[in-house]
Amino acid sequence: MPSTKLFAIVAGAGPGTGKATALRFAKAYPVVLLARRPESYAEAVAAIEAAGGTAVGISADATDPASLDAAFERIARDLFPGHRLAAAVFNAAGGFARKPFLEQTGAELAGALDGSVKGLWNFAQKTIPLLLETVSAEDKPSHPPSLLVTGATASVRGSAQFGPFAAGMFARRALAQSLAREFGPRGVHVAHAVIDGVIDIPRTKAYAVNGGVEDGKISADAIAESYWHLHTQPRSAFTQEIDLRPFVEKF
Amino acid sequence: MPSTKLFAIVAGAGPGTGKATALRFAKAYPVVLLARRPESYAEAVAAIEAAGGTAVGISADATDPASLDAAFERIARDLFPGHRLAAAVFNAAGGFARKPFLEQTGAELAGALDGSVKGLWNFAQKTIPLLLETVSAEDKPSHPPSLLVTGATASVRGSAQFGPFAAGMFARRALAQSLAREFGPRGVHVAHAVIDGVIDIPRTKAYAVNGGVEDGKISADAIAESYWHLHTQPRSAFTQEIDLRPFVEKF
Amino acid sequence: MPSTKLFAIVAGAGPGTGKATALRFAKAYPVVLLARRPESYAEAVAAIEAAGGTAVGISADATDPASLDAAFERIARDLFPGHRLAAAVFNAAGGFARKPFLEQTGAELAGALDGSVKGLWNFAQKTIPLLLETVSAEDKPSHPPSLLVTGATASVRGSAQFGPFAAGMFARRALAQSLAREFGPRGVHVAHAVIDGVIDIPRTKAYAVNGGVEDGKISADAIAESYWHLHTQPRSAFTQEIDLRPFVEKF
Amino acid sequence: MPSTKLFAIVAGAGPGTGKATALRFAKAYPVVLLARRPESYAEAVAAIEAAGGTAVGISADATDPASLDAAFERIARDLFPGHRLAAAVFNAAGGFARKPFLEQTGAELAGALDGSVKGLWNFAQKTIPLLLETVSAEDKPSHPPSLLVTGATASVRGSAQFGPFAAGMFARRALAQSLAREFGPRGVHVAHAVIDGVIDIPRTKAYAVNGGVEDGKISADAIAESYWHLHTQPRSAFTQEIDLRPFVEKF
Repeated sequence: MPSTKLFAIVAGAGPGTGKATALRFAKAYPVVLLARRPESYAEAVAAIEAAGGTAVGISADATDPASLDAAFERIARDLFPGHRLAAAVFNAAGGFARKPFLEQTGAELAGALDGSVKGLWNFAQKTIPLLLETVSAEDKPSHPPSLLVTGATASVRGSAQFGPFAAGMFARRALAQSLAREFGPRGVHVAHAVIDGVIDIPRTKAYAVNGGVEDGKISADAIAESYWHLHTQPRSAFTQEIDLRPFVEKF
Repeated sequence: MPSTKLFAIVAGAGPGTGKATALRFAKAYPVVLLARRPESYAEAVAAIEAAGGTAVGISADATDPASLDAAFERIARDLFPGHRLAAAVFNAAGGFARKPFLEQTGAELAGALDGSVKGLWNFAQKTIPLLLETVSAEDKPSHPPSLLVTGATASVRGSAQFGPFAAGMFARRALAQSLAREFGPRGVHVAHAVIDGVIDIPRTKAYAVNGGVEDGKISADAIAESYWHLHTQPRSAFTQEIDLRPFVEKF
Repeated sequence: MPSTKLFAIVAGAGPGTGKATALRFAKAYPVVLLARRPESYAEAVAAIEAAGGTAVGISADATDPASLDAAFERIARDLFPGHRLAAAVFNAAGGFARKPFLEQTGAELAGALDGSVKGLWNFAQKTIPLLLETVSAEDKPSHPPSLLVTGATASVRGSAQFGPFAAGMFARRALAQSLAREFGPRGVHVAHAVIDGVIDIPRTKAYAVNGGVEDGKISADAIAESYWHLHTQPRSAFTQEIDLRPFVEKF
Repeated sequence: MPSTKLFAIVAGAGPGTGKATALRFAKAYPVVLLARRPESYAEAVAAIEAAGGTAVGISADATDPASLDAAFERIARDLFPGHRLAAAVFNAAGGFARKPFLEQTGAELAGALDGSVKGLWNFAQKTIPLLLETVSAEDKPSHPPSLLVTGATASVRGSAQFGPFAAGMFARRALAQSLAREFGPRGVHVAHAVIDGVIDIPRTKAYAVNGGVEDGKISADAIAESYWHLHTQPRSAFTQEIDLRPFVEKF
């Protein structure tokens, strides 16, 4: 019996969680990396190939349905014909910085909502049908197909001056919960991770987080390892939500 | 010393919570009622006037900044010159019905987000500056100026097939929390109410909620009474969130 | 038709929430005040009588079932024969100070659990049957009979070095929730209040809370007013949980 | 450089989560199994030894400090001299069945609190000092030392007629949170798992959970795998809480 050929997709494949997750899942599956700009995924694609894996980067904007349509048509047609989707990771950032409410603009609110929740909604519209197909594949894959969604502190806390970001991330969490309740019983594992801290990436190197203590920022590789664990959970024991934070983080 | 003259605004002034809240606050203040269509506020305006109160209805769409601009210009210029804003209630509905995720449209998602969170954000942009002015009025009003926000079961629970509505209502709650944390310390009371059940209004008369038992739907007048209580809380004891449900409601 | 004669009971009637609640409810009902030591309720009893109300203090320890038995026998026999219980407020303190976990003693844990949850369980065993009788009284009282339970920040947050207190207060909240779900549908309103801040009482006068700002501590009278509001909610719109905190409190 | 020799302890080592966790951790460490009665751990000890691992069962009652003292003295003296504690798992059951509140007894409440929170408090008093020693071991172990705590649906929901059990499990969760906040910054990973469903063990074979669907009960091995994942998280990315439930479980 030939086993089902599988692949994974990571949206928001820039440095940090996206790149690390793509590398981790590439140990098991060919991986498609989506990002708005090629420079965001180029490094991850190179690193996966250097490690002997298979990776394809596609420039796509999850907030734009037409852009996603084009990307998924290309995936279906050119990339992995006959492959089933094992895992889809949504990691695109919401993109809003702290700002007094009365200085915020409607465009900033719209941008935060687009990035946080419209992007996930679009991405789920494309990936849920593929994940459902994997559930009904003749030879079941080892792990239930998964949709993994990256959250943040702002997913569970509306801090002062963070309204648009918190609005977007609360909304993203709501959508992930709703999808888990609709598609869990159909065999698709939808999980949400509250990343509660600053991730240790080149851009944050200079930040003296948690007093600058060693391991005071979150290792992106460790996040990726937890995402992989979520993916490997059997359907008798799905996790819907985890939190991840450095040992010294206040919470 | 002349006491400060005050007024209140209720956005989303249709039958149910909006109308009942307008009537309750009209016992103390002249009230402006905002709704998209005159037929939504006409009944409430008539009822307030019949009871000896003062009410003005204005057709306005909270999701449209230009429409709100026009409404607030009219309020400042024509309606209550020299009056300060005592209370602003945001009660506009999110407007989304249950539907399988894969049948939902992007327009439905956008509509739910617009109604639930963009509308509140627009309304808060207009009312927070007025509420801050009330805080600094020379003769302090009896009650801290308040922004009261109506939520729903979907504000805290992402049920299956309710993704867009839950996304919007989670986002609304996040924004209310964020505003409470930014403007509470400046003297403005921002509170959020989780209305967890079906409200007893003409449109729901036929619904056999909770087995059709008496009081199995929520009285809009009771909600209004709780809103009034929130408004009267002194700043030493602000409530940020309450839930309200019929005694027989499962939760 | 003669209306039902009613009374209220406040357990934990010392200065602060207990005394203020007793005074507030005494405007409507004769009140029984329970406390371990007479000096805890003496002041409140005197203040109620001075205001023209009726109050009786009884020394009783809610953590000791025999002590409560004696108190409720006396109430039934001597105090208000033929009266029904309108409201029961449980406000006894958990009694634990911050201490490193490895320095805590088993006796401190037991004391915190006794005060926080065993006391409420005992008190509810005595009051729920009386509240159910009120529900079925021939002439219904104006407000559904209520069991109101005082919580704290530690009811929803297990802070470092506060394990026993948080354990007790989480447990108290769990029991209040469970009682609300069992007895709400039978007409008894069980509500829990998260008092999130320092209460302004003689013992805390010296504390420079929130930078010593005016109204930076919670007014006990304001808490009492919110408890009275909870008591007056009709059964079509019960609140199960509110939070109360000063406008400047971080949360 | 000689690497640190490590061992693990599982309290509540009966069939289900306890046995499965002991087996999983025995792949890496010698394991001590604690249970009140030898028949509870006998099967797990035999299974570990059959698989080539090392296991020792000790009869001990976590609710009794003297019993735990004796067990830990024996561990220190006889079992693994020079070994450090890598992981401690608290899995003892709370032990309370659904019952109308007015039929519950004080002994049932006390039993639920003892089993759920006093037992954990006692166990943590014995294991936290050992876990702190592991943190400061000269040659660091691969994984931060961990205290893993088993919760249940009742840890986050006070259902009708489940007051004592919910009180105990809310309290257990509070204590786990408090320990995480105190000892996380010192390098000990404290995590809590909300096991939201019926575990698939011999005793539950006959239960037609979730309509009797395959995988409608939770696999104890899957829980154990998630516990192992929690144990392997580096200190830059600790999870404090996960939920685990069957794909078809309502939540």
